[in-house]
Amino acid sequence: MKKLTLLFVCILFASEGIAQTSNVQDSLTMRSIYDMALLNGKSYDWLDYLSNKIGGRLSGTLNAEQAVNYTEAELNKLGLDKVWLQPVMVPKWTRGFPEYAYLETGPGKSIITNICALGGSVATPDLGIKAEVIEVQGIEDLERYGRAQIEGKIVFYNRPMKADLIHTFEAYGGCVDQRYAGAMEAAKYGAVGVVVRSMNLRLDDFPHTGSMTYGDAPASERIPACAISTKGAELLSNTLKLLPTLEFYFKQNCKIYPDVQSYNVIGEITGSTYPDRYMVVGGHLDSWDLGDGSHDDGAGCVQSMEVLRLFKKINYQPKHSIRVVLFMNEENGLRGGRKYAEEAKLKGETHVFALESDSGGFTPRGFSFDIDDEDFAQVKSWETLFKPYLIHYFEKGGSGADIGPLKEKGMVLAGLRPDSQRYFDYHHAASDTFEAVNQRELELGGATMASLVYLFDKYGTKSELKSIKN
Amino acid sequence: MKKLTLLFVCILFASEGIAQTSNVQDSLTMRSIYDMALLNGKSYDWLDYLSNKIGGRLSGTLNAEQAVNYTEAELNKLGLDKVWLQPVMVPKWTRGFPEYAYLETGPGKSIITNICALGGSVATPDLGIKAEVIEVQGIEDLERYGRAQIEGKIVFYNRPMKADLIHTFEAYGGCVDQRYAGAMEAAKYGAVGVVVRSMNLRLDDFPHTGSMTYGDAPASERIPACAISTKGAELLSNTLKLLPTLEFYFKQNCKIYPDVQSYNVIGEITGSTYPDRYMVVGGHLDSWDLGDGSHDDGAGCVQSMEVLRLFKKINYQPKHSIRVVLFMNEENGLRGGRKYAEEAKLKGETHVFALESDSGGFTPRGFSFDIDDEDFAQVKSWETLFKPYLIHYFEKGGSGADIGPLKEKGMVLAGLRPDSQRYFDYHHAASDTFEAVNQRELELGGATMASLVYLFDKYGTKSELKSIKN
Repeated sequence: MKKLTLLFVCILFASEGIAQTSNVQDSLTMRSIYDMALLNGKSYDWLDYLSNKIGGRLSGTLNAEQAVNYTEAELNKLGLDKVWLQPVMVPKWTRGFPEYAYLETGPGKSIITNICALGGSVATPDLGIKAEVIEVQGIEDLERYGRAQIEGKIVFYNRPMKADLIHTFEAYGGCVDQRYAGAMEAAKYGAVGVVVRSMNLRLDDFPHTGSMTYGDAPASERIPACAISTKGAELLSNTLKLLPTLEFYFKQNCKIYPDVQSYNVIGEITGSTYPDRYMVVGGHLDSWDLGDGSHDDGAGCVQSMEVLRLFKKINYQPKHSIRVVLFMNEENGLRGGRKYAEEAKLKGETHVFALESDSGGFTPRGFSFDIDDEDFAQVKSWETLFKPYLIHYFEKGGSGADIGPLKEKGMVLAGLRPDSQRYFDYHHAASDTFEAVNQRELELGGATMASLVYLFDKYGTKSELKSIKN
Repeated sequence: MKKLTLLFVCILFASEGIAQTSNVQDSLTMRSIYDMALLNGKSYDWLDYLSNKIGGRLSGTLNAEQAVNYTEAELNKLGLDKVWLQPVMVPKWTRGFPEYAYLETGPGKSIITNICALGGSVATPDLGIKAEVIEVQGIEDLERYGRAQIEGKIVFYNRPMKADLIHTFEAYGGCVDQRYAGAMEAAKYGAVGVVVRSMNLRLDDFPHTGSMTYGDAPASERIPACAISTKGAELLSNTLKLLPTLEFYFKQNCKIYPDVQSYNVIGEITGSTYPDRYMVVGGHLDSWDLGDGSHDDGAGCVQSMEVLRLFKKINYQPKHSIRVVLFMNEENGLRGGRKYAEEAKLKGETHVFALESDSGGFTPRGFSFDIDDEDFAQVKSWETLFKPYLIHYFEKGGSGADIGPLKEKGMVLAGLRPDSQRYFDYHHAASDTFEAVNQRELELGGATMASLVYLFDKYGTKSELKSIKN
């Protein structure tokens, strides 16, 4: 079958003449990348270790430290030109246990429901918080209800993700302000706590955590905030309709500590032609603490490591210096992404391309690009190369949080776009575990990333070519 | 967001002038189809019932009968113009319990492994079969080994699915002859039984059943055949390397009964313009007995029912008569598909289009078409309509087993093509259960099918248009 494929590729391009030689070469290289990933990929094994031997890797924890050590050691086995740790100070927030909640519908009558503290939230008082609840559909409702109806109550943000959006990340974007800024805004109206519907398109029992902010509010004005599972949110909403005076109780034990030392993990294959021009491929090594962070973003880390491993395995010597960067602290600070960009600028390193995988380890569908028109035209010319691998999605849009700070004019940023339909079933929840990842889907993602990096390395970006000519 | 989408669609097409009015209408209709499916789809609820309240639906079983009654009753609730049962006689084969196997590596030393009888296999003798094993990589190896090395042994077919193929159905096609004809061929060399590596790309403990044939062999020459899980196959193969004389034992209790009465379940919306020209959308209602048949092919059935429900819900009155056909007995006989085609011919019904969903309930990627060039050109012109729904795959190829017998010159056959990476993890195994289906992915499939049927209904097929003109 492989021979037949090669023959087919050759015939296909032979008919278009010698000008297509490079295209034939690209087809063959991509085929060898995909074959290597599907037959002897390493992403799944690495993820097994990260997820099952280490587990959730919240910044500042021992698990995060273990993940730094493990991935550094694994990169050291790949025969790269350099592997190092880039120090970065990260915030340290701990959840504390137990955390729990119930609806009190009468004296001695309560219904237990599943919650989890939002990342960065303060604790409740030792005895917990119990108060009446006001349900809203978003921050914009607060003004309408006003202090008179909100003061002393728990604000329940219950705007669900819009199920009719095909891109689930859009649906997430349409809700996440409730989680991120809901507590800060509700406190301004005298709320004593916040419960946020989990950012999940399924109805299930998992609460989904995620980052939140208090802005510049003084400690005295910071109110505790938790996420409630989608089933819990339906229960609370329906019960409120029957009994608007019910009280909601929750207890959480979070703590914020001083920043601690951590690291970005970096490996490099030094470029043969442009050793001082860099291309980055990465994901974030930290994760939330509830699951084991397999989809978010263990997958992106191992796929990024795999890109460099695949280049070594197929004996591809890149022209540019290709770096894998496993960023620390994307989830609750973005310190790693900022640090990497800051140092790159300090050292005057020229970065021409960066690719992040941080949308789960599902079947890859394509890429989203933060890119100029000229470079985008070049990407479009590669579409046929990707078609045999069922990679069809090449659109302008966002890339990835960690590589965002690197952006400079002319630089190309890209984000891997896997199938997103299941992603928010797992995102930031205890259900984000290794079992939810399919080996082939994961390995296909690494091969797809390696193929794009290969093409950008070989042909360069347009602004890069201009600057080299000048 | 919906308003924005509509606005965008309008602007997009307005710029191309009035000739595009129909395209705007098509965009709007498709948007309403997808909205209805994602916000108020019924596929998932129907599948929940089929899978969890009924379960596996092997032809000739009480479960299959329950599924006929349930889906007929559900179709009757949709306000279709006609709902009926089409009688069809189906084979009845039962697995019988228990079935089990072990490797005997010495007196009293055995390693238990997971097997299941292949569908249609005969039983072992009451005490089971125990014999030495000869491992082969396919039917073509039999001739090379010859009767001298095969006689009296159990043939172990261990050619794995090729992991480097992107289309997993191709990998399946490259192995399934071992399962289908392996016993029949091995018997010709004097083998006493057959063990076949499960058609599964994962390494796990589930044996995967599936149909097999003895051709015209007399009862005395029919040897029992089972599937072994992929982990079991690795174990057997590795142990054989250490101990080529090990004996394999298996016991199964299958029975074949006379054919029994069953039914295809059919519902119709009668066409407003061409009531005597038919378009079919379907899946198969029977399944194997090990799991609950959620992906294969409960998904295809409920998606097909959903197509007609969506048309009613959005008030689309089709020009052609649109039939949903839930075919009986695809898995071990194809009697339902043959019966439907036979009756259609007897009655002189003109079928112009048929679409089958029988590749799992995963995120839809597009369609494969058995189609003339002219009609294919029309399909290609619809690609942009599907792009907002991330439906990119439109290729010539196979359609579906049940609709195959309907094929006549000029008729268009199509098969839904969902993402296939996980499909063979579940196919024909106890792991094919409702939990493996994601609601959004399933509902997206139904909406995608409805959109294609809508377009073919509205614009007709090219050969149909010619015949109408003449």
